[in-house]
Amino acid sequence: MSQAFAIAIHGGAGTISPETMTPEKYEAYTEGLKRALDKGYAILEQGGASMDAVQAAVMELEDCPLFNAGKGAVFNHVGKHEMDAAIMNGQDKSAGAVCGISRARNPIQVARAVMEKTEHVLLSGAGADTFVVEQQLPIENDEYFYNQLRYEQWQEALLEGTVQLDHSEKKMGTVGAVALDQAGNLAAATSTGGMTNKKYGRVGDSPLIGAGTWADNRTCAISCTGHGELFMRSVVAYDIACLMEYSGFSLADATDKVVMQKLVTIGGEGGLVAIDNEGNIEMPFNSSGMYRAMRKSDGTIKMAIYK
Amino acid sequence: MSQAFAIAIHGGAGTISPETMTPEKYEAYTEGLKRALDKGYAILEQGGASMDAVQAAVMELEDCPLFNAGKGAVFNHVGKHEMDAAIMNGQDKSAGAVCGISRARNPIQVARAVMEKTEHVLLSGAGADTFVVEQQLPIENDEYFYNQLRYEQWQEALLEGTVQLDHSEKKMGTVGAVALDQAGNLAAATSTGGMTNKKYGRVGDSPLIGAGTWADNRTCAISCTGHGELFMRSVVAYDIACLMEYSGFSLADATDKVVMQKLVTIGGEGGLVAIDNEGNIEMPFNSSGMYRAMRKSDGTIKMAIYK
Repeated sequence: MSQAFAIAIHGGAGTISPETMTPEKYEAYTEGLKRALDKGYAILEQGGASMDAVQAAVMELEDCPLFNAGKGAVFNHVGKHEMDAAIMNGQDKSAGAVCGISRARNPIQVARAVMEKTEHVLLSGAGADTFVVEQQLPIENDEYFYNQLRYEQWQEALLEGTVQLDHSEKKMGTVGAVALDQAGNLAAATSTGGMTNKKYGRVGDSPLIGAGTWADNRTCAISCTGHGELFMRSVVAYDIACLMEYSGFSLADATDKVVMQKLVTIGGEGGLVAIDNEGNIEMPFNSSGMYRAMRKSDGTIKMAIYK
Repeated sequence: MSQAFAIAIHGGAGTISPETMTPEKYEAYTEGLKRALDKGYAILEQGGASMDAVQAAVMELEDCPLFNAGKGAVFNHVGKHEMDAAIMNGQDKSAGAVCGISRARNPIQVARAVMEKTEHVLLSGAGADTFVVEQQLPIENDEYFYNQLRYEQWQEALLEGTVQLDHSEKKMGTVGAVALDQAGNLAAATSTGGMTNKKYGRVGDSPLIGAGTWADNRTCAISCTGHGELFMRSVVAYDIACLMEYSGFSLADATDKVVMQKLVTIGGEGGLVAIDNEGNIEMPFNSSGMYRAMRKSDGTIKMAIYK
């Protein structure tokens, strides 16, 4: 079997400026991306499923404190962590997601369990935390999620009275992955800690099927990162699939129209990683940077932060 | 100004059989629908906004114990109420939504406040309940939400160990409204108590923009009712808008394709009310019944339960 396979990942988009990037930080971020990319790619190379590849890649990013997901999740208004994640299988459009969970080590693993162990798609809040415990998925205490940088970001946001989109260089948000496997199946996964100092159980686009996450073998797999509210109101991920299915757009044209035109018009800062069923990959963003990487079975490898 | 205006509402879809419907029950349901329809229509007739009309109609349905939303919300697994709602303005695609709130008298009012008083779109769980209190929106105690029929449904579901889609005649779910006002603006609103005996903070399609609720002046306004998980995975409401915008479908053709073909193929039982920017209304459903009503400025009035 020699069907093409490929994976693309992101570690968030935002106003990332080269001026404040030290060589050490650059090295750390690219190292984090590389570990996740390698993990996912290895699964695809061995003939594994795209669902396993995107989950493994996202778990690696969740375990890295540099990215706003899992261990690196930002603090909410009351100094806790509320994490969201979603995973979708392009083969049958089955999906699982969680929002507002606080204790799981790997929210994407919980999303996968929602998909496989329940008849539901989205579980939320305290109820979802109970599900994590009942499923005996790894949980962590506050110490695990504590991170001095995140703590300082929260204190700063508290003082300023602002809700921070985790979008400055110090405050990068959301991780995700999309992949095509050797069986021709697409998958997408997204995970995030949301906004620093967020209140009232705010949920963004990441865990919402069609908004921040989408996969359908007939069209594409998408994982978004950006200003969640505007991504939700634009149903970004499914909009790209519809442009492909109903208007005959290529992946490149559809992602360009949504990210570089439609979202720009409404001030929806961010980007996404996308893959179609031929293994074409697009990683567009309208912010100054997006942590991203991709690797294809034809030997193409790319890793970048700025434009 | 003599621009056409119109409103359509629903009180849930499911396996509603004429055999078990008594004249008294029929009277009560149609009376409940009529009150909501009249409330919304009066606002449109006086030149009011579609946003106010759909909110008023849904609040009326939330206040009626017959429908699974607000006062009539079903019991979850631990004997509490977790309610979801969303509202969307077709003029600027602004939106507000809540999921898993437990104390608000009118969840749709909370969704409207999320849209107007915060920079967010979706608030969840305990955090969203805090928002309700801070906004001084009407809250109610357990007694208000207590309802013998709902209690018995919950006890039955507990015994059977099932999660009930509120889809038998006894267990009808979700309310919603869509409207076009004299200024040519579309709006949609949806509210639900979800599934009887639901666990783990399960959230369905109702509060998700693009899934259960959508409004865009360029295409249509939609409010869905049905098997939430399958509606989420199909991004039902936005799919109809995309078929209109990208494939040039009429509202009738787009709703027919999604409800009577695509959803039927995957077993996604339910229906929706839809209106386009010319005031055309569609109320398709693939279940045996859907509580529904509509009224147009040209004099058309319709109210029905069965096919």
